[in-house]
Amino acid sequence: MLGLSVDKNNDISLYIQVYKQIKEKIIRGKLKAETKLPPIRMMANFLDINPATVVKSYDLLKKENLIYQKVGSGTYVMERPLSHSIKNNEELELLDYGQIKLNNHINFASATPGANLFPVDDFKYVLNKILDRDGGEAFTYQKSQGYYPLRESIMDYLFQNDIITDINSIQIVSGAQQAIDLLSKILIDFEDSILISEYTYSGAINAFRARETKMISIPIEIDGMDLDRVEEIVKNREIKFVFVMTSFQNPSGISWSIEKKKRLIQLAERYNFYIIEDDCLSELYYNGEKNGANVAIKSLDKEDRVIYIKSFSKIFMPGLRLAFLVLPEKLMSPILAAKYATDISSSGLNQRVFDFYLREGLWIKHLNKMNKIFSERFKNMKRQIKFLLPDEITLVYEPEGGLYFWLSLPEGKNSEKFYLKALKNKIAFLPGNVFTIDNKINSFFRLSFAALEEEEIKIGIKRLADIAKDFLGNNENKGYTPLL
Amino acid sequence: MLGLSVDKNNDISLYIQVYKQIKEKIIRGKLKAETKLPPIRMMANFLDINPATVVKSYDLLKKENLIYQKVGSGTYVMERPLSHSIKNNEELELLDYGQIKLNNHINFASATPGANLFPVDDFKYVLNKILDRDGGEAFTYQKSQGYYPLRESIMDYLFQNDIITDINSIQIVSGAQQAIDLLSKILIDFEDSILISEYTYSGAINAFRARETKMISIPIEIDGMDLDRVEEIVKNREIKFVFVMTSFQNPSGISWSIEKKKRLIQLAERYNFYIIEDDCLSELYYNGEKNGANVAIKSLDKEDRVIYIKSFSKIFMPGLRLAFLVLPEKLMSPILAAKYATDISSSGLNQRVFDFYLREGLWIKHLNKMNKIFSERFKNMKRQIKFLLPDEITLVYEPEGGLYFWLSLPEGKNSEKFYLKALKNKIAFLPGNVFTIDNKINSFFRLSFAALEEEEIKIGIKRLADIAKDFLGNNENKGYTPLL
Repeated sequence: MLGLSVDKNNDISLYIQVYKQIKEKIIRGKLKAETKLPPIRMMANFLDINPATVVKSYDLLKKENLIYQKVGSGTYVMERPLSHSIKNNEELELLDYGQIKLNNHINFASATPGANLFPVDDFKYVLNKILDRDGGEAFTYQKSQGYYPLRESIMDYLFQNDIITDINSIQIVSGAQQAIDLLSKILIDFEDSILISEYTYSGAINAFRARETKMISIPIEIDGMDLDRVEEIVKNREIKFVFVMTSFQNPSGISWSIEKKKRLIQLAERYNFYIIEDDCLSELYYNGEKNGANVAIKSLDKEDRVIYIKSFSKIFMPGLRLAFLVLPEKLMSPILAAKYATDISSSGLNQRVFDFYLREGLWIKHLNKMNKIFSERFKNMKRQIKFLLPDEITLVYEPEGGLYFWLSLPEGKNSEKFYLKALKNKIAFLPGNVFTIDNKINSFFRLSFAALEEEEIKIGIKRLADIAKDFLGNNENKGYTPLL
Repeated sequence: MLGLSVDKNNDISLYIQVYKQIKEKIIRGKLKAETKLPPIRMMANFLDINPATVVKSYDLLKKENLIYQKVGSGTYVMERPLSHSIKNNEELELLDYGQIKLNNHINFASATPGANLFPVDDFKYVLNKILDRDGGEAFTYQKSQGYYPLRESIMDYLFQNDIITDINSIQIVSGAQQAIDLLSKILIDFEDSILISEYTYSGAINAFRARETKMISIPIEIDGMDLDRVEEIVKNREIKFVFVMTSFQNPSGISWSIEKKKRLIQLAERYNFYIIEDDCLSELYYNGEKNGANVAIKSLDKEDRVIYIKSFSKIFMPGLRLAFLVLPEKLMSPILAAKYATDISSSGLNQRVFDFYLREGLWIKHLNKMNKIFSERFKNMKRQIKFLLPDEITLVYEPEGGLYFWLSLPEGKNSEKFYLKALKNKIAFLPGNVFTIDNKINSFFRLSFAALEEEEIKIGIKRLADIAKDFLGNNENKGYTPLL
């Protein structure tokens, strides 16, 4: 039956033997999506094992989202998400993450600024300074927690952003993705539950999935997560943490109200969970002064409930791979051990260079420059979205900063199909299913302007409008706006 | 009973509830080592649950090495290895890994060369070249697999070392430790078994332990692992891989014979497992020409059984965090996904710089220089060990390269105690328990000369001899050789 067998003399438990054989067949594509598995009792009879053993095998497979139950019908092989069955790297990076460069495409998928915006001259100056100052020391191992002076600079930087912490609570890591991966390692245990936004950063979903956690997704409202829903859940079950981006959330672009930030901390205290705050974009606000909506939850945290992730490299110098964590005291020792077991330490040379870069005020200088450029792009793109895209496509939220616009096709329309159609016509963006736990098809999509010049944005939106009209079936004229 | 309770209405299984509560108490130190746990039946009666449930909880705790069974006596809390109960980072890095700098100590623990040996000027030249050539491109995201030209350079480099591979089989990672961590993620599944050397690199043990694998340790002989023992095991149970260092193994310094390398590949083919080969030091051979014992297993591998890890940064520029993997084709897609979920990619700037460094022949130049320096230190240190240390201390193997000497106190003597005594007298090295799965006390210890100048080695060995005589109880004169 399905070519399975068990060996009762093997010291691997029978349910693990069954589980592994089925898993392998699914992963290798020998058991296709929607294949019905034999009923428990039939399988047990065939293998001459206890039905409870088969139940345990099936349970493990369900936990890993390899099979699922159809009520009243039986157990079926789950469709593998696109990212699990990719054949080549290009496709993976493009579809899931949108960070790849696409020649001849207008790329609304990428969240990385164009190379011409990176501060090469300042950086070169700093690099040479450091090599002259530190010599061979710059190439030795750093301690796993990170270069001490850099942690000092970060402490000062945080202080200016109303986050008061100490040097020993700061852990340097190789980018925000590593921060999320390390936190998953130390916080998520067998069968633990966590909360995430209904639409969120796919890299976080991947890291949590790799730890086989139970992810519960919470709807997003205009001022943050639906906290009534959060309270309902945490009242009834233990959760380890909630993962949030409170400024210009990826992908929706919304920012949390200060009231919701405070209430989430209260819930975390009362129901004993952590808040992981991933802050990538809070500096990119385009409507005048920073306001309450840009304040980090961490700055409101008096009870050491918030784990704060901040990437310096993500938007401005991804090639450096540098980010940091601010952690509650009792997580410092576990995070250090996890960092050590993962990659010992982040590049010491890059840490020294970035420290100097911060101290010389070059970071603030760069930030101001980027803010000015992105602010212009943002305003122009918003205008073009409103004027050029067909009325059936709605801007779900009106963001006040960040790098993303979150739009929706009319209800019931499939944004992945729209994405594929656009891609054929040399426009890239990210469809909403990329931001969900189960790759669920929906009507949403994200446009980012990080990698595009004003001129490209203008042409791209015009062309996207043509494609949309065609896709939505109300276009008279199929000649699209020509590309650059 | 132990302050445990269960909630039958909670949707977390009862055995998980019991397991989690006990685990927490052990980790927080509320249940001390050697505390006896209540017998199954008593615990079940008290909690009003099924004895089988308690058995399942205890089994999980055993699997994680938190408790153990004493035959005929009951179940006890396991002693936590030192590294799990460390209070501060210094102690952790010092004891487990020996990579920290110790002021005023003579440090035979560190495996990292002194900062004065790093090629700062060449490096600065290359950095500036790259920034002029690539500008902002050097700061963008790299693809997860790594910078294409660097993979090309590596392919050429491997070709010179008789490893024939293609660009698509090479994955760039942030140091050898990350390579091991990623491989653990993709290869080790629930309840899998792997084989490692009886004494091996503690960073590998940590990474494997984090995946809750069953590690089986194999004795080391003068020409490699005891392969009869390996065959005995793989005949009877499935294993995922064997982890080996075949040139100047850490910590023993031995190199595998070519016969054993070939036989291991045959075993891997026959019994269907992978070989992970971690090559840190094969270039550091001091007895003339490279011989069969320095040939990588990978170069003998015709069946795509060997996963090859090579660090460029480990010994020569640890601050760069760069290494690479050569992988069998069917592991490429999983490793890419794991790399992405872990930290997206390794520093693109460092990859570009190192590529140029390789292409300009600067790597070979640096290697030759290091080889010459280390060769001298090696020969002198070997002589001093033989002439100065008391006869009761034996050099277990006569290495022909690398950075380590593996020594033994007389049988039954505790090398951790010897280590602590030496540390008080400002000599650091690594005791043998650091290299074992279960931190088991033994008589071995490792001396490394990577970080020490000739003069320091001389004084250090002399002083260590004094400490040893005192420790072994046959020293007349307690006035130790003064430090520098």
